[in-house]
Amino acid sequence: MNRATLVASIFQKKSFLCVGLDTELGKIPSHLRTSDDPVFEFNRHIIDATRDLCVAYKPNLAFYESLGPNGWQTLARTVDYIGREHFVIADAKRGDIGNTSRMYAEAFFQKMNFDAVTVAPYMGEDSVTPFLGFEGKWAIVLALTSNKGSSDFQRDWLEDSRELMWEKVMRVAQGWGTPDNLMFVLGATHPDAFLRVRELAPRSFLLVPGVGAQGGDLAAICQHGMTDDCGLLVNASRSIIYASSGADFAEKARAEALKMQREMAGLLSV
Amino acid sequence: MNRATLVASIFQKKSFLCVGLDTELGKIPSHLRTSDDPVFEFNRHIIDATRDLCVAYKPNLAFYESLGPNGWQTLARTVDYIGREHFVIADAKRGDIGNTSRMYAEAFFQKMNFDAVTVAPYMGEDSVTPFLGFEGKWAIVLALTSNKGSSDFQRDWLEDSRELMWEKVMRVAQGWGTPDNLMFVLGATHPDAFLRVRELAPRSFLLVPGVGAQGGDLAAICQHGMTDDCGLLVNASRSIIYASSGADFAEKARAEALKMQREMAGLLSV
Repeated sequence: MNRATLVASIFQKKSFLCVGLDTELGKIPSHLRTSDDPVFEFNRHIIDATRDLCVAYKPNLAFYESLGPNGWQTLARTVDYIGREHFVIADAKRGDIGNTSRMYAEAFFQKMNFDAVTVAPYMGEDSVTPFLGFEGKWAIVLALTSNKGSSDFQRDWLEDSRELMWEKVMRVAQGWGTPDNLMFVLGATHPDAFLRVRELAPRSFLLVPGVGAQGGDLAAICQHGMTDDCGLLVNASRSIIYASSGADFAEKARAEALKMQREMAGLLSV
Repeated sequence: MNRATLVASIFQKKSFLCVGLDTELGKIPSHLRTSDDPVFEFNRHIIDATRDLCVAYKPNLAFYESLGPNGWQTLARTVDYIGREHFVIADAKRGDIGNTSRMYAEAFFQKMNFDAVTVAPYMGEDSVTPFLGFEGKWAIVLALTSNKGSSDFQRDWLEDSRELMWEKVMRVAQGWGTPDNLMFVLGATHPDAFLRVRELAPRSFLLVPGVGAQGGDLAAICQHGMTDDCGLLVNASRSIIYASSGADFAEKARAEALKMQREMAGLLSV
């Protein structure tokens, strides 16, 4: 999905919500567990309940890999079920030497029909650029993540270039791609970073985890991070998909997604 | 596999060779391609030809994921075929927020029977520690990789702690684990790093890519990097498994592995 289509979808739906499909077998309501593929059944209900309220879905690969080989079947079925109207992100945090990153890119962009893959920048240019050569496909580079460990290395001050590590990642990676094939992860748990980010990356889309349960504030993120064409995908995973552990899980997931979509509609029209 | 068993295997075989199973469908000799599972057939021949000459195998996950869901079956069959006498590394370069890294750890250590997983450090402590809580299992943290892109961020000088990024990764990560459950990747393409590494991590095992095709020098690595109990696993992938593209591929792979093992035997007895 190219940028124009993504932006059109955002303004049509008045939403920049990404629903994270971090589905754990142990957290699925008991009445679905007798199915042949309980994780897919759960995802199908969540997708049906949220389809009109979000523009993106983001399965985290770890949750599918933990199921063994069948997990990849479940993931492929989920991506197919989502279809082509949504921006589908493989939250895989991959990154390896050039010829190996190319294999990952083929896995996610050609074997499966993902629109984007999250990529760890530690191994540098040749680990990221193989994800950039596919029409309508995106690399989403980790800049500043939402977790506690983001302060271990990402916020280190670099003597030579007089900037923080995450700032350098953002600056340098923009030389590898364009705002049409490269996004960045910027955690909502770092409000100071949102004050800086549009100086560093004026047009790049940001994938923003950490709103909701982790404490990030949606209005503040939008105030500083939103561009003319939105430029934001805000992710919520657990707060939506596990809004209820009962038979009403899909209904409650929809209510949570609707709450976020309404707030987003207000913020988009400012 | 714990450290004592790994070290015993190294001295018994007079080898610290790790064979990288980076098997590409397109590079498999044509006579194997009619098999139901050509990648497994190729791996099986390589394993049979090198089993007595190496102490570790390292399948890179990208090559299996690029095959789609069947690739995970192939990977699982390969790990089972290797058996429990070798140290088996999932070269996956994973790393995510805590609860997600835990899912990866379960995938590799419990669903499959890997001994170790390579882990990217960018997301910090909570992305690495979930790999450390399994008896006899290891995290192998990327410190300084062998590729060109390793100079983009890993060699940046940090103002506050007066060290390079890879040195900080090594210093800080040792506080998360022990030399019995944590190793580091240190590329053979950085001879200067081997001059420093035993000051930074006196006992940690190092997984060393970049010998051979990429130009790293085995003798120099051992001179500076070897500990009393070896402390090194040196990987070779393409130079062994693609030593020949013909019907004699396994034989030629064995010849390459034997050449390395003999050099290693000499270096171990210094």
